[in-house]
This record gives sequence, structure tokens and C-alpha cells, in this order.
Amino acid sequence: MVKRDVTVTEVALRDGSHAIGHSYTIDQVQKVAKALDEANVPYIEVSHGDGLGGSSLQYGRSKTNEMELISAAVSVCKQARVGVLLLPGIGTVEELKEAENLGARLARIATHVTEADVSKQHIQLAKELGMETVGFLMMAHMVPTEKLVEQAKLMECYGADTVYIVDSAGALLPHEVKERVKALKNQLKVNIGFHAHNNLSLAMANTLVAIEEGATWVDGSVRCLGAGAGNTQTEVLVSVLDRMNRSTGIDLYKMMDLAEEIVAPILEKPQEITKGSLILGYAGVYSSFLLHAERAAHKFNVDSRDILVELGKRRVVGGQEDMIVDVASELAKKSI
Amino acid sequence: MVKRDVTVTEVALRDGSHAIGHSYTIDQVQKVAKALDEANVPYIEVSHGDGLGGSSLQYGRSKTNEMELISAAVSVCKQARVGVLLLPGIGTVEELKEAENLGARLARIATHVTEADVSKQHIQLAKELGMETVGFLMMAHMVPTEKLVEQAKLMECYGADTVYIVDSAGALLPHEVKERVKALKNQLKVNIGFHAHNNLSLAMANTLVAIEEGATWVDGSVRCLGAGAGNTQTEVLVSVLDRMNRSTGIDLYKMMDLAEEIVAPILEKPQEITKGSLILGYAGVYSSFLLHAERAAHKFNVDSRDILVELGKRRVVGGQEDMIVDVASELAKKSI
Repeated sequence: MVKRDVTVTEVALRDGSHAIGHSYTIDQVQKVAKALDEANVPYIEVSHGDGLGGSSLQYGRSKTNEMELISAAVSVCKQARVGVLLLPGIGTVEELKEAENLGARLARIATHVTEADVSKQHIQLAKELGMETVGFLMMAHMVPTEKLVEQAKLMECYGADTVYIVDSAGALLPHEVKERVKALKNQLKVNIGFHAHNNLSLAMANTLVAIEEGATWVDGSVRCLGAGAGNTQTEVLVSVLDRMNRSTGIDLYKMMDLAEEIVAPILEKPQEITKGSLILGYAGVYSSFLLHAERAAHKFNVDSRDILVELGKRRVVGGQEDMIVDVASELAKKSI
Repeated sequence: MVKRDVTVTEVALRDGSHAIGHSYTIDQVQKVAKALDEANVPYIEVSHGDGLGGSSLQYGRSKTNEMELISAAVSVCKQARVGVLLLPGIGTVEELKEAENLGARLARIATHVTEADVSKQHIQLAKELGMETVGFLMMAHMVPTEKLVEQAKLMECYGADTVYIVDSAGALLPHEVKERVKALKNQLKVNIGFHAHNNLSLAMANTLVAIEEGATWVDGSVRCLGAGAGNTQTEVLVSVLDRMNRSTGIDLYKMMDLAEEIVAPILEKPQEITKGSLILGYAGVYSSFLLHAERAAHKFNVDSRDILVELGKRRVVGGQEDMIVDVASELAKKSI
């Protein structure tokens, strides 16, 4: 058994699918997973970017059926465990069973940070199937710490082995991560995890703060391959933790090599912080709001960024897209 | 007079020239400088990547004479002050006088972190010319904090208004930045500055730690345009500081716009953390060592990264390139 201070889950084959239009092929997944396995990465997540069952007109169609991709990853892994993401409402229990049957050993059940209660059935099923189980609280910046603790406790009592704080919009500042991890660490018995996005160039900073405060599970994506500005860059994280004498059990040189030789060629273009990803992190809103806000901005002759910032202040969530036009209209009246 | 908590110097037109093979044109510099000026950026550095006089076979030839680029920037700035970098031994007092005569108002005199004594003449000249003057201590990770303080004090006593800690290799970890800034803040009277590189994905983290510990001058580069993995991304830094209620006096939306519309099209390819820039930050060595190490690695059949890590441990500096072959040879013997 490898001794690790920090357990890294590689998400390039799941979150990264957002960055390449869900176009992973079996060949790509096998090459990446095999190299990650050989570098001793302990967990490799493979799913549509929006989790099992995400392939759709709404979320983007996968080029290859994700069950085939999961099988492909499982077939080449000697030590690594393959994980899947599931958002109740998008993915189903049947899909979770199918993935487990194909060899997935880690289930990450993800909900909006206020909706942990919808994860009960799926967390319990994953445990019954004998899978390691993570509760994944998305858009964690949107609620005060007390609310986050309350929701995390729900996932803990459903049976999750680990509860993750997920900074989906890359909106959390380091002191906000510190407060949240500290509170969870104090009030939960299970492992605490952290998943960063780099919209404010803080993915590495926040991941290190989380580890400092006691998070023992963190996510990385090779070459930052993930939604928005991408995630914490795994090969860099492994280098930094090595410099800080925190062991990940991962072979640093192999990670550097696979990033350059196997993952980089898959990227359509390098991940960087663009105007769009920056404003999402700054405002703390869903990426799906961007296009709606731009359309409303055009219609009402206001700045789309002012709309997004206002939506962030009002903590508007998915499904409330009609609010975008309301906000644009209000801003237009104010500016007269 | 604008009230600022943090004074940002934009370095994309100097450090960024490394990233585009020193190919800036007058038109590009005018467009970028004008937009930065309109966004209320207080200082804009314009020089060859290696400072005044850097255009050479050794450091890379500038496509356009840097004095013409300085004039071009000065001609479009209404409030921003144009700065120049000068490394004694590369640039000369005559070049500094010429730049001042063309309208440069900020002189940044840069030396290796152990060689502050060679900056005396240039710092004194800059002050005599009435320029704001910065002492710039490069490769600051290579010495213990006491040594850094000693060298910074030299620059202070020569008359520098501000002394910068320069993390040239992007090798400093946040706690190392904290210790260094704190010590300088305690033991110097002048302003403390910090210049980051992103080789370990820590440019933003380190810049925030520096500000937290009392640094009031920091560098940024729009779209990360700088040597290695680039610098702290200015438009992102301004966003983050805004979220933290630290004023920079800079117009955030104008910064976002100019990054996307004016600077991004100049990049030959987006800045990212590649295998090469990562190993330089991990080992903490000069970028010029990379090619030498790869050649020696090939000759002695060892891993170039082991050579670089060993060079970092031995704190080998520029001019000692013959050590690279020695280290490779030693490693080859050990591995037999």
C-alpha cells in the first residue's frame, strides 16, 4: 500500500472533456489512463463532463459512449482505480450500476451545494455496490460556511467516505477556502476533498490552502484540461507538493512526460484565462449564463459583465435563467 | 492623485518580449500602451526582455530598436509612466540617459540577488536624472533571507525608492515569499515590490502573499505574457484584488477588454506551463540552462531533469555553464 499525505484524483478524462467538446476517443482514453496508471496516479475519473448520462443536446453529445471509455480506462489500469461522476437528475442509478459492472470503483455523487438531499439514494447505492464514495458539493462559493457544513453533514450521514468542496466557478478566494475547509474538518469525521477551477488563477493557491487546512483528497487535471480556465494542473501540483515534502505517491517525471507527450497533443488549444472565464470567476456564476448574459446585454444595451456580477450577488442558480433578462432590463433602466 | 493600495507595473512590453522572440513593433507597443494608459495602469515597462541593450546575438535581437519602442509608448501615455529595465553589464548609463531623455520616468536596476553592489552607479544616476528608481533582485530564491535583506539594504542605501524581490525562475513557494517579504518589510524603510513567474502555477498565490505581508508594488503581465510560464496575469490580479477590496486604481473592464482584444492577438501561442518551464521552476535554475542540460543529458545518457535539480541544489549561476557537463558526468558515474 502506498503511503500518501494527499490523494490525487485526475479529472482530465472527465472535467477535461468540457475543454475538447466531449470528443474523447477510446484510443485517447487508453493512452492517457495507461500513462496515469504507470505514473502511479491513484484515481482516474472518466465520464462525460457533466457526469454519467451527460451526453445530450443540452450538455453536449459525447463522441464516444462513456461506458466504452470507462471500459477502455479500466482495461489498462493495473493499480489506479477508475472513478465516475454522477449528478442525480442527469445520471441514473442504472448508469451507476453499469459503470460499476464495467469496473469503476469510485463513485462521485455531485449536487448543487444546497441540494445534498438529492444525493442520498445514489450515495447509498454506491456504498452497497462496494464503491468508494465521494459527495461532491458544487458551486460551494454560493453559500455561507454554516450552510456548507450542514449540506456536507448530509452527505456524510448518507455514507460518503469523503466530502468535496467544489469551486465550480473558480470563484473562491484563498481565505474563503481556508474558512470552509477548516469548518468541515472540525465538524465532519470523513475525509475532506477540494476541487478547484483556475478562473481567477487561484487553483493552485486554493488547493494548497485546502491541504494546509486538512483536506487530504484533491483533484488535478493534467495540463489544466477542464471546464472554464481548467483545474489545478496535476503535474505542477505534484511538483509543488514534492517541494513541500507532502507525498502523493505519484512519479513526478512520468507525470511531466505524459503531460507533454500524451495530453498536450489532445488539447485543441492550450488552456488559458480568457475574458469569458475570468468574468465567470469574478462574478461567481454558472458558465451557462455567459451566452444568455451576452444576448441580454445586446438587447438592453448594457455590459454583460454588469449582468453577470448582479446575478452573482443575487446567487441565481441554474434553472433561473429568466432572471438574466430581468437583471438586464433593470440595469438598463438604472443607466437612463 | 489616484489612491492605491497596490501599485501595479505592467511588464508585458518588457518581460513579454521573451515570449514573442523580441518581435514587438511600434504599432503593437502603441496600441498596448495606449490601452493600458486608458485603463489607468500607473507604470508600463518597455525594454528588451533582458533590459536596455539586451538586443544581441546572445540574448536575442529585437526586431525594432527599443528606444523607438520607448518613444512610441511615451507618445501615447497621458497618465501612465513608462519604465525601463537595466541590468548593469548588459545596459549602460548612456542607454539609461537616452531612455530618460525620450521620456522614461521609472528606472528598474536589476542584478543577481548576490550582486546588488553593481547597481550603485546606475541607481544613483537614475536618481540624479529625477527618475523613480527600483532595485530589482533577481533569482531571489537562491539565497537565504538574511542575505536577501543585506543585498536589499545596499540598494536602499544607493537611493532606490523601492526594492523588488524577483522570483525569476518561478521557484519560490508561498511560505518562502512570506518569510522574505516580512523580513524586508521589517528591515527596510523603502517600498517593497514583488515580481512573480508562474512556472509552478504560484504567481498569483505568491503575489497575494507578498501583498498580505506588506509589498505595495507588484508586477503583472497581461495574458501572462512573459518569460518561462509568464508572470502574474494582470487583468486577473486586478479582478482578485478588487474582490479583496484592495484598490489598484485600474479600470477592471478596460483591462479585461484590452487583454482579449489587443494583447491576445499578439501572442504566438497562449502561455502555459510546459514540461520545460515546470522543471525550471521545480529545480530553481536559469532558463538558459535548459538547452545545455538537454545536450549534456544526451551525451552522458542521464535525465536532463536530474542535472537541473542538482544544479539548483548547488545554486549554480549564469557564467558557470561548464558545471552542467561536470554534473552530468557525475550523475552518469553514479548510475553505473
